[in-house]
Amino acid sequence: MFSKILIANRGEIALRVIRAAREMGIASVAVHSTADADAMHVRMADEALCIGPPSANDSYLSIPAIISACEITGAEAIHPGYGFLSENASFVQIVEDHGLTFIGPSSAHIRMMGDKITAKETMRALGVPCVPGSQGGVPDLEAARAVAAEIGYPVIVKATAGGGGRGMKLARTAADIDQAFQTARAEAKAAFGNADVYIEKYLGHPRHIEIQVFGDGKGRAVHLGERDCSLQRRHQKVLEEAPGPAIDPATRARIGAICAEAVARMGYSGAGTIEFLYEDGEFYFIEMNTRLQVEHPVTEAVFGVDLVREQIRVAAGLPLSFHQEDLIPNGHAIEVRINAERLPNFAPCPGKVKTFHAPGGLGVRIDSALYGGYVIPPYYDSLIAKLIVHGRDRPEALARLDRALGEIIIDGVDSTLPLFKALLAEPDIRAGDYTIHWLEHFLAERLG
Amino acid sequence: MFSKILIANRGEIALRVIRAAREMGIASVAVHSTADADAMHVRMADEALCIGPPSANDSYLSIPAIISACEITGAEAIHPGYGFLSENASFVQIVEDHGLTFIGPSSAHIRMMGDKITAKETMRALGVPCVPGSQGGVPDLEAARAVAAEIGYPVIVKATAGGGGRGMKLARTAADIDQAFQTARAEAKAAFGNADVYIEKYLGHPRHIEIQVFGDGKGRAVHLGERDCSLQRRHQKVLEEAPGPAIDPATRARIGAICAEAVARMGYSGAGTIEFLYEDGEFYFIEMNTRLQVEHPVTEAVFGVDLVREQIRVAAGLPLSFHQEDLIPNGHAIEVRINAERLPNFAPCPGKVKTFHAPGGLGVRIDSALYGGYVIPPYYDSLIAKLIVHGRDRPEALARLDRALGEIIIDGVDSTLPLFKALLAEPDIRAGDYTIHWLEHFLAERLG
Repeated sequence: MFSKILIANRGEIALRVIRAAREMGIASVAVHSTADADAMHVRMADEALCIGPPSANDSYLSIPAIISACEITGAEAIHPGYGFLSENASFVQIVEDHGLTFIGPSSAHIRMMGDKITAKETMRALGVPCVPGSQGGVPDLEAARAVAAEIGYPVIVKATAGGGGRGMKLARTAADIDQAFQTARAEAKAAFGNADVYIEKYLGHPRHIEIQVFGDGKGRAVHLGERDCSLQRRHQKVLEEAPGPAIDPATRARIGAICAEAVARMGYSGAGTIEFLYEDGEFYFIEMNTRLQVEHPVTEAVFGVDLVREQIRVAAGLPLSFHQEDLIPNGHAIEVRINAERLPNFAPCPGKVKTFHAPGGLGVRIDSALYGGYVIPPYYDSLIAKLIVHGRDRPEALARLDRALGEIIIDGVDSTLPLFKALLAEPDIRAGDYTIHWLEHFLAERLG
Repeated sequence: MFSKILIANRGEIALRVIRAAREMGIASVAVHSTADADAMHVRMADEALCIGPPSANDSYLSIPAIISACEITGAEAIHPGYGFLSENASFVQIVEDHGLTFIGPSSAHIRMMGDKITAKETMRALGVPCVPGSQGGVPDLEAARAVAAEIGYPVIVKATAGGGGRGMKLARTAADIDQAFQTARAEAKAAFGNADVYIEKYLGHPRHIEIQVFGDGKGRAVHLGERDCSLQRRHQKVLEEAPGPAIDPATRARIGAICAEAVARMGYSGAGTIEFLYEDGEFYFIEMNTRLQVEHPVTEAVFGVDLVREQIRVAAGLPLSFHQEDLIPNGHAIEVRINAERLPNFAPCPGKVKTFHAPGGLGVRIDSALYGGYVIPPYYDSLIAKLIVHGRDRPEALARLDRALGEIIIDGVDSTLPLFKALLAEPDIRAGDYTIHWLEHFLAERLG
């Protein structure tokens, strides 16, 4: 086992890793920008090094600074947290080249999953369900009709060179396909100078369901069920829960086994998340995140495991400490991401936290680098606290979340706390009945 | 189910009950003395009533004030917490006479267990193991020899009228019994004017092991394993853990079944704890506490249940929400009781808490009514926070406790936090190798 690791991150996730390291008897090294000299991760680590100015490019993203910090402190391994360098294959290569251990998958796996087309092809080849569509471009109307009929309506015609919704046309039924195809081509030609289009199945009301996987890098892997992360604003997750309200045990076992098998065959090492859209009982692969997720604590609560500890163990070459048959979900967990942002526009709201009072009691976990008197710097993302509750079932978890939201005090800066209180009053949320579009609609109606 | 309950207590346990009530959708009424106007339980409850001056006799122990508070607020039931009126059979009778519900056992059961002789006779009759001894007084030396031989050495000769160690003599072997008997009688005669003595088995190195039981009041009952609460100072528990380091599953099942059966046959309702001395594989009944214990969270962590919710449910006439076969201990939990006391003499240390920063992260629970700026009043007991950790096994729980103790900040008053850091450094504590005498010896050696 390592005797010292460096955490190439800040905020709550740096604290999360420091905690795991301390519980394992491993010394921790924090790195920080000048803006973070008073940050909690700096205070809590066994050692701390300033590696640059506030700009992330010159500190948390500076590969030379981080490698140097390892060499100065004698840290043997680097935990990247999430964001920053966590999915940077070049960084991982450099870490390996310096004889250090990256706590995460190999650079090859990160690179493979970082390229969305390669990722999809790899996953499809490994038997992971992807969005059905044309193999490449669709040359003419006849081909378009045939492909759409094979996929099944509704379908979406998309510009091969496209993006941002341009050259994108929906065909709800066969009656729409001719016009959709021709309009999409015309728009694509006008917008991108390239009329080529492809066709995919259109998902009108999907959920975002992701499967937590863990590989030992030697061909063994397990899954730890799903998280429903459909509640998103501008593709940022806001509330996550496990198990997914729409997923039954048989569905979990089926998709989980597919994901674990795929990861095992890849020889994947460490924690990963395979993200899907889920609609009408079917999963459609989006991407794989080759790192720890922000929302990992809901999985920890439900499966009674410590995912960061496991990451460190696996990176040190130890076998997985759990078998698939031991991984039985227990109860229900919900996480909310509390951001220092002002409603209704979610404007970042850095500044001095006068008071921070954490909720307590049964089934409540708080992951936060806040403390009373802390000044949230304006340079980084606005996540300031994760509140995670665990109950015997979903109603109990919701009641506990409501109760804990009534206790938490963050004074001095605006935060997204009022959003969660509003969400808990919504019948759709209480029923677990929401898609990836739900929150945007809610925000437009209620806060717009 | 009740729509409103009153909590006849203060501090962390009042908060504990308010939390459970809130999660069940039950309104809560706090009562408080004038000294507690700014207390957390007052802030957190849905309603709060001042019921008297600082003196507990005139507020938290004032039965008329509490009954009046119920009548004024329309509360239908009273949760007594622990201490104060929680084991006062007369209070329970008055509550019942007013058509209110006491959240706890019947006054008859409280009275029965409140009288130590009746409790022991009842338990013995129900098959609960008690300390072997003479049935009543031992008239002469011949009888003393016979009784001691039957019980097995070592035995202790005790004055029937005695107390405080006077008229108490140990006989380690048969060679000691004549002198022990005669000296005890002489001392008893001199000290109490009554030479009568009785004989009991002497336990030289017992642990304090208690079994959590829960009855539905209709003849059904379960046990939720044991807690080892041997670490005590002046009979006050300081650190508790579950499972007990010395108890194996077969032993747990055996004593647990005996306790659950006894409680079922009594028709006992609600939470209770049957306390034992435990030595060389044998249990010896001490007493039964007919209320929630301070240390109940370790059981909640290990069994994944909410004991306060269950108390409220059972008091409302609902059946137990768990069956014995569902109650399988998971992992290991440890609680430390953080008191506002100054070491080495444990002098109470009330005053203003400048900063309170709770530890967070995986497997950490804090039950505390502290907040930054709170003034701990000098009138009540000195418990200010309970820190409970849960891990997959005892080493992980110990490591987590160590980690969490490194995070918690209580600034402005002295507390017993340094004691726990010292305890964690002790090989005996790490090994789980301690008796009810361990802490007193440790304190005398290290802090004396």
